[in-house]
Amino acid sequence: MGKSSETEGYILAPDPEAVRLTRSVTGRDQTGALTEINVVEERPLTIFLNAREIVTAMTIGDYPEYLALGFLRNQGMITDADAVLGVEYDAESEAVVVRTEQVTRFEEKLTKKTRTSGCAVGTVFGDMMEGLEGLRLPLSAVKLSELYALASKINRTPSIYLSAGAIHGTVLCEGGQPLVYMEDVGRHNAVDKVAGWMLSEGVRPEGKLLYTTGRLTSEMVIKTALMGIPALVSRSGFTAWGVEIARQVGLTLVGRMRGQRFVCLSGEERLVWDIDPASVPDEPKKSARKGAE
Amino acid sequence: MGKSSETEGYILAPDPEAVRLTRSVTGRDQTGALTEINVVEERPLTIFLNAREIVTAMTIGDYPEYLALGFLRNQGMITDADAVLGVEYDAESEAVVVRTEQVTRFEEKLTKKTRTSGCAVGTVFGDMMEGLEGLRLPLSAVKLSELYALASKINRTPSIYLSAGAIHGTVLCEGGQPLVYMEDVGRHNAVDKVAGWMLSEGVRPEGKLLYTTGRLTSEMVIKTALMGIPALVSRSGFTAWGVEIARQVGLTLVGRMRGQRFVCLSGEERLVWDIDPASVPDEPKKSARKGAE
Repeated sequence: MGKSSETEGYILAPDPEAVRLTRSVTGRDQTGALTEINVVEERPLTIFLNAREIVTAMTIGDYPEYLALGFLRNQGMITDADAVLGVEYDAESEAVVVRTEQVTRFEEKLTKKTRTSGCAVGTVFGDMMEGLEGLRLPLSAVKLSELYALASKINRTPSIYLSAGAIHGTVLCEGGQPLVYMEDVGRHNAVDKVAGWMLSEGVRPEGKLLYTTGRLTSEMVIKTALMGIPALVSRSGFTAWGVEIARQVGLTLVGRMRGQRFVCLSGEERLVWDIDPASVPDEPKKSARKGAE
Repeated sequence: MGKSSETEGYILAPDPEAVRLTRSVTGRDQTGALTEINVVEERPLTIFLNAREIVTAMTIGDYPEYLALGFLRNQGMITDADAVLGVEYDAESEAVVVRTEQVTRFEEKLTKKTRTSGCAVGTVFGDMMEGLEGLRLPLSAVKLSELYALASKINRTPSIYLSAGAIHGTVLCEGGQPLVYMEDVGRHNAVDKVAGWMLSEGVRPEGKLLYTTGRLTSEMVIKTALMGIPALVSRSGFTAWGVEIARQVGLTLVGRMRGQRFVCLSGEERLVWDIDPASVPDEPKKSARKGAE
């Protein structure tokens, strides 16, 4: 199968041959022989909200604007009420600045907070949970045929994971079709880049599904819920708190999805058994992705 | 083989049956049948340095005192110069306080910093890199026979990974013997708990080796180097910057170690080929750990 058919239907697919994202490194294998392997890049990126330095993220380095925008949005640092004027990336200083029309509520809060305790780190987590109160994700169907089609397509999509490993992927999907496939050294970055892309392009979350190679932790569940996406699927496992939050907001949470098998621990009412899982071929060994966590 | 022989020689081994660390959750499998699976817990833990709130970490919840102490040490927030008076954990408020005899240099710096830019997050990373300047790890031998013995022992050690998945492990080892095996939902927490244990017990890093189930990112390499441990080994892959820092400080970095195979991308001068890798049995399928990243 040619590359073109494997990325058919994608709006944004990974670019495993992009020069800046991986590097060839020479070392020794177990026999002592020289060996050359391809490893992923990892660079610091400092995110600013207007004049304020927010965080330095370690990232593979593609789509810094989407990463910054998605991060701030998923952390509740910018909301619908904030008009984003622009996002500027400066490669030399490894920094990206998100500018809003007016001072954000978050910046105001931060100013108060730093006057008292001096550090903003602790507030971030509270702000994320705050955004979940009263949130109920829209009802929509998740067909098993689509789940299996997605897993199969995503596993065959040329990616940095397949060429260099040590990376996480998050894929925005709709109706059995992967649309936007982001990869990053941190799984939170990959999902933030998807969020940033959706914001920039004005793409609505209804009817969408997120597929991730990483674990279904509270952080992944919260980000997905804050993005308004009603279903999150992974090859990997769950954490108890991730499951708890998913149930609280009505998110469909499917994990340990490999070949025919999967487990759904929340939001099973969305699942539609339109095909017999026994009819699905089991994962071929050669294309088997590892259980990246 | 009985459990006792599998944990022989350990000072601290995982306790996969500990009640607080995993939870049984009911869901549906792909056939629609009810299924019950074991998932790991994930709890917030807020770390204080004296009166100052530093960070809220998401953790499985064991050894909060080691986690707090190791985190602050690995971030360069406490140093040898700071006399630690005590570490107090309060389960109800999910907080742990590390108290030092005098105000730390980090707290002084933070006070200055928050007066200007208002946020301490960005300084953390810079502080970690600062600790690496001029650091050269001691020379010591890493025998291949020990590497293979460690991988085999660790993979057979009863763990939360084997019983519930979705967790990372970091193991402090010496001469082919695993000593302290910590697990956590974040790989940085697992290594910080090892660091906290070493500090509390006054254990020296010379001649030790760290084994991790996670990727060899810059963060893992920096933490290992700051702990003074000369070798870091993983089943998982590398990032380019992790390799660069390892070479800079002279850390032996071995990755992609599965069965007979491995790749060494830094510090190969410590490796001693005392056995023929071809004589090592390949990893049996049933005990194969997944490539947790």
